[in-house]
Amino acid sequence: MNVQLVPSAAELRARLSSIRQAGVTIGLVPTMGALHAGHGRLIEQARQESGCVVVSIFVNPIQFDQKDDYARYPRALSGDLEFCDSRGAGIVFAPAVEEMYPHPQRTFVEVTGVTEHLCGRSRPGHFRGVATVVLKLFNIVQPDRAYFGEKDAQQLAVIRHMVRELNVPVTIVEAPTVREADGLALSSRNQRLSPDQRRIATQLFQALQLAEKRIAGGVSFPDQIKQEALAVLGQQPQLRVEYLEIVDPEEMQPVAHIAGPVRVAAAVWVGSTRLIDNVLCRPG
Amino acid sequence: MNVQLVPSAAELRARLSSIRQAGVTIGLVPTMGALHAGHGRLIEQARQESGCVVVSIFVNPIQFDQKDDYARYPRALSGDLEFCDSRGAGIVFAPAVEEMYPHPQRTFVEVTGVTEHLCGRSRPGHFRGVATVVLKLFNIVQPDRAYFGEKDAQQLAVIRHMVRELNVPVTIVEAPTVREADGLALSSRNQRLSPDQRRIATQLFQALQLAEKRIAGGVSFPDQIKQEALAVLGQQPQLRVEYLEIVDPEEMQPVAHIAGPVRVAAAVWVGSTRLIDNVLCRPG
Repeated sequence: MNVQLVPSAAELRARLSSIRQAGVTIGLVPTMGALHAGHGRLIEQARQESGCVVVSIFVNPIQFDQKDDYARYPRALSGDLEFCDSRGAGIVFAPAVEEMYPHPQRTFVEVTGVTEHLCGRSRPGHFRGVATVVLKLFNIVQPDRAYFGEKDAQQLAVIRHMVRELNVPVTIVEAPTVREADGLALSSRNQRLSPDQRRIATQLFQALQLAEKRIAGGVSFPDQIKQEALAVLGQQPQLRVEYLEIVDPEEMQPVAHIAGPVRVAAAVWVGSTRLIDNVLCRPG
Repeated sequence: MNVQLVPSAAELRARLSSIRQAGVTIGLVPTMGALHAGHGRLIEQARQESGCVVVSIFVNPIQFDQKDDYARYPRALSGDLEFCDSRGAGIVFAPAVEEMYPHPQRTFVEVTGVTEHLCGRSRPGHFRGVATVVLKLFNIVQPDRAYFGEKDAQQLAVIRHMVRELNVPVTIVEAPTVREADGLALSSRNQRLSPDQRRIATQLFQALQLAEKRIAGGVSFPDQIKQEALAVLGQQPQLRVEYLEIVDPEEMQPVAHIAGPVRVAAAVWVGSTRLIDNVLCRPG
């Protein structure tokens, strides 16, 4: 393998310092591991635009609002390393929890406004944990560009706001959601689904697609569209809706009337697995 | 004048980028202007340790809990420029409020724990504003070292915690408080004092010195020391005590018993002017 596994922040800084001094640009793909083709797409895009690609793999405890979810989050480092190697990443930064949090963590990045709805509402403290760890990773790696997937659209909005409002010297690059043939968005959590649950999970994207079609067709009342999309999800008694909202793509606030691009975003539970997805929709 | 006045963050970044590429180290002295010999000491120390010294001058609205205090904070840019020039600073970064906050600021750095007492208790939101603007300045300037005065000891503790817990790539350098001949700590706010108030203000350092003497003499009960120090301050009816506390120097939490180094810190009002000061004390 050509990819280098670095568990220490100090060692990573030292290596990147000489890489940077040689004039090589650095691309960072922050992940929680259990890598799939969605991450693959981010790494490949980073490879095209940056001289050295760093993939960070860290299941960040402070962004989990439920201990059980943290404990059960899939971990697969050796497979992830091969995955990164085969896609041309230069360095995998996989720190232990003690490496990222050697002291009690009492400093947090709070991004307000954009976190009021959707996952920010249903997972208290989640985006505080995300923003804090992403800023820590930015400060350790000091990348020229950092890559995030559209599937986590609210996370992307949080990071864009953070970078802009804290003057973080990094360019944020967004890559589109990668889907299975039947439309299910790739997620590390999908591997937890039983075959039955896996079939049911496709309903999420179908509901979003219906909303997209209605919006393109000129329906401008969010409530009407939400009702129809929720009816699609309601066909599956094993699927529980956490939220389904139509928000403006910048500020992630629910819109009262659809007059421009909106994002339809939803979170559902299939058994004990939480799935999120979203689509950017334009009125016809 | 040799010093360069730069009001734009983008222009500052561009200039510093070529300076950095030439292998010159950068020292940052963040200030709110109305510069005095305390700032002068920070600049001189930065000059000794760094190839290029950047002094930022920005009266940061989001760290003021009272609008009136923000409005009345002294501003003296042309004098400050000469001051920086005479001490060998290379660049003065003096952005407008719109330059630092071009968008509604909804992202904040919250440093908890160390902000629970002292100024953190009496000025809600103050350290959130300080930590946020200092991180913005760090991200704009990307200094190797940043210089802060011991007079603002809790601010220093906040910044040290932030830097450590967010992995900010900067070394924090602390410089001792500079005092007038009669002991009054230099502060931009001192210029607001009438001659009468100026005389009364010296009582603050006298109270702290008494505490220092008692601690060096072996008194280990904070309450006893506080009572004596408060009695000194109480001799001046025109002086109002906001707080006087004995805290551990790292975490800034009040101690129940003095067994190692402590910081005695106080905030008082003389007329409408708020003054703070502190001394690091070692038990005898």
